[in-house]
Amino acid sequence: MKTYTVLLTGLGHVGLNFLRILRQKEPVLTRQYGLALKIIGVADSSGILTDPDGLDLDRVIDHKEQKQGVGTLGQTGISALQLVNDTAADFLLDATPSDLRTGQPGLDLARLALSQGKHVVLASKSPLVHAYGELAALSRPAAQLRFSGAVCGAMPTVNVGRRDLPAAAITRIEAILNSTTQVILTLMAQGSSYESALVEAQRLGVAEPDPSLDVDGWDTANKLVIVANAVLNIPARLDDVVVRGIRSVEPHGEQWALLGLIERVGEGYRLSVEPVRLPSDHPLARLGKDEMGIVYTTDIYGQIAVTSAKQGPAGASAGMLRDVIDIHHTSQSS
Amino acid sequence: MKTYTVLLTGLGHVGLNFLRILRQKEPVLTRQYGLALKIIGVADSSGILTDPDGLDLDRVIDHKEQKQGVGTLGQTGISALQLVNDTAADFLLDATPSDLRTGQPGLDLARLALSQGKHVVLASKSPLVHAYGELAALSRPAAQLRFSGAVCGAMPTVNVGRRDLPAAAITRIEAILNSTTQVILTLMAQGSSYESALVEAQRLGVAEPDPSLDVDGWDTANKLVIVANAVLNIPARLDDVVVRGIRSVEPHGEQWALLGLIERVGEGYRLSVEPVRLPSDHPLARLGKDEMGIVYTTDIYGQIAVTSAKQGPAGASAGMLRDVIDIHHTSQSS
Repeated sequence: MKTYTVLLTGLGHVGLNFLRILRQKEPVLTRQYGLALKIIGVADSSGILTDPDGLDLDRVIDHKEQKQGVGTLGQTGISALQLVNDTAADFLLDATPSDLRTGQPGLDLARLALSQGKHVVLASKSPLVHAYGELAALSRPAAQLRFSGAVCGAMPTVNVGRRDLPAAAITRIEAILNSTTQVILTLMAQGSSYESALVEAQRLGVAEPDPSLDVDGWDTANKLVIVANAVLNIPARLDDVVVRGIRSVEPHGEQWALLGLIERVGEGYRLSVEPVRLPSDHPLARLGKDEMGIVYTTDIYGQIAVTSAKQGPAGASAGMLRDVIDIHHTSQSS
Repeated sequence: MKTYTVLLTGLGHVGLNFLRILRQKEPVLTRQYGLALKIIGVADSSGILTDPDGLDLDRVIDHKEQKQGVGTLGQTGISALQLVNDTAADFLLDATPSDLRTGQPGLDLARLALSQGKHVVLASKSPLVHAYGELAALSRPAAQLRFSGAVCGAMPTVNVGRRDLPAAAITRIEAILNSTTQVILTLMAQGSSYESALVEAQRLGVAEPDPSLDVDGWDTANKLVIVANAVLNIPARLDDVVVRGIRSVEPHGEQWALLGLIERVGEGYRLSVEPVRLPSDHPLARLGKDEMGIVYTTDIYGQIAVTSAKQGPAGASAGMLRDVIDIHHTSQSS
């Protein structure tokens, strides 16, 4: 039985769902993996709460469900970065909603934790989009970086590309990585205008009040940058992606998709995000409205696709647990 | 740079394609993984060929392409088992076409090699169907067992279930695991009778002269037994699977599928292989004629599907290379 000490930063939907999943899965972790996680510190925007003997997670969950910050249980005015800096722990799990323009606060949290020798699991894309190469270079057996929930949550989007296609020449990657636009485009194929489809998606809770990040393609572009870095090992940046959103699509009853595409061009790759009509026999043309997917076209493995459906709101949180168990396996075998 | 010594048993399509892929990928293995494979012994039904300094693979490939046994280059009358027994090596790669009724010769080869401390990569289902538990128990960091090419070749059928869904309650596994019946049923949906679809599949080279293993469902059943053992960790056996083939399907213009199904029933699981009509929004209803796929339904990861297309004849061989690289990674981190 191995017990790891854990810091969790960010207690929005992703962090809170992680705690719920952890409580639910504690018996399985013990029985099946010989593994226990002791959460010794959490942080949200209000402050931090710590206990070296392990926090009472039900109390934290209950408190957050009542829309209260953990600072009111612990200390206010102390940042997640100070918590990580001052607390020895095996893991940092970061679920803060980092800013896409700066990668912060996740980027500084991850840098600090890795350099201190903590394993780091990221749920947020932003630090990876800004500094994939730097963070990957800091990752080492004693302080490993994982982020399988950062690109489409529960879908093993990057894992399959990195682990199941080794030594392949990957000539093309096509992906539907944004569920909001998939819902909107499906409603539009059924006859809705863009405007009414957006309103319906907002009513369903899948589109934000300001939908621009999704509908203008930037969420997909950010995810595509991570795929390019993590799977193809190329230093792609957001500026490298040609991005066009779905606002001006006129589907005329046809199913369109917002396709993230990485094509091999000469010795390099071209990255784009654009609305397209996929041929009806394309693996991604068949995706339903709550589905995402990625297709890798390779030389020696043929075409391998992964899709995800019915993921629900806790997919990214489940991805964090997957990463913790993966690091546990890697550490055990050494 | 790490050089591994390797024995390869079986030089039919799978073994020979492995050698071709290896020759093609040697520069990538060196550059990207710091890895070289030195094939020091091969065996086919004619005998063996060995060279402690590494065989000339082009010569072996050329010889086999001329339908000659390697015994005529090396020693006749010596079995693969003797080769493995008498030769120190880091890896045994077994591509012999083992008998489904006995698991041999692969089962004895794998047992021997693992007990000697060799890593073992299996391309054949049969040893796993007969003795999954025994072989898995022999696997350990110094002598690891892998078989990612044994269930649908290049498709990471088992890998995704084992590695990307940890701690999940897997409530249902649905899979199309046999390409021959997928081709026949697709032709039947287009109006062919069973008999003419079979003849066409035989003409295309996707159905055997005796198609019973495929069309009666036993190939799928064998694969399903491995999935049950390797992903669900249950000691399922072929006798546990309710099997019905496709000979009596009358599709009336509809797409049927030969579905391998594992359902949770009470505390246990029910395994079956049966022709079914899938609802049109089912991820596997959308598969084309050269495609296979598996859908895992879970509690915390939602529904995750993996599909494979355009795999070609070398998928299982590529799976063997994937396994070698995976073992290399695991060994490097220890």
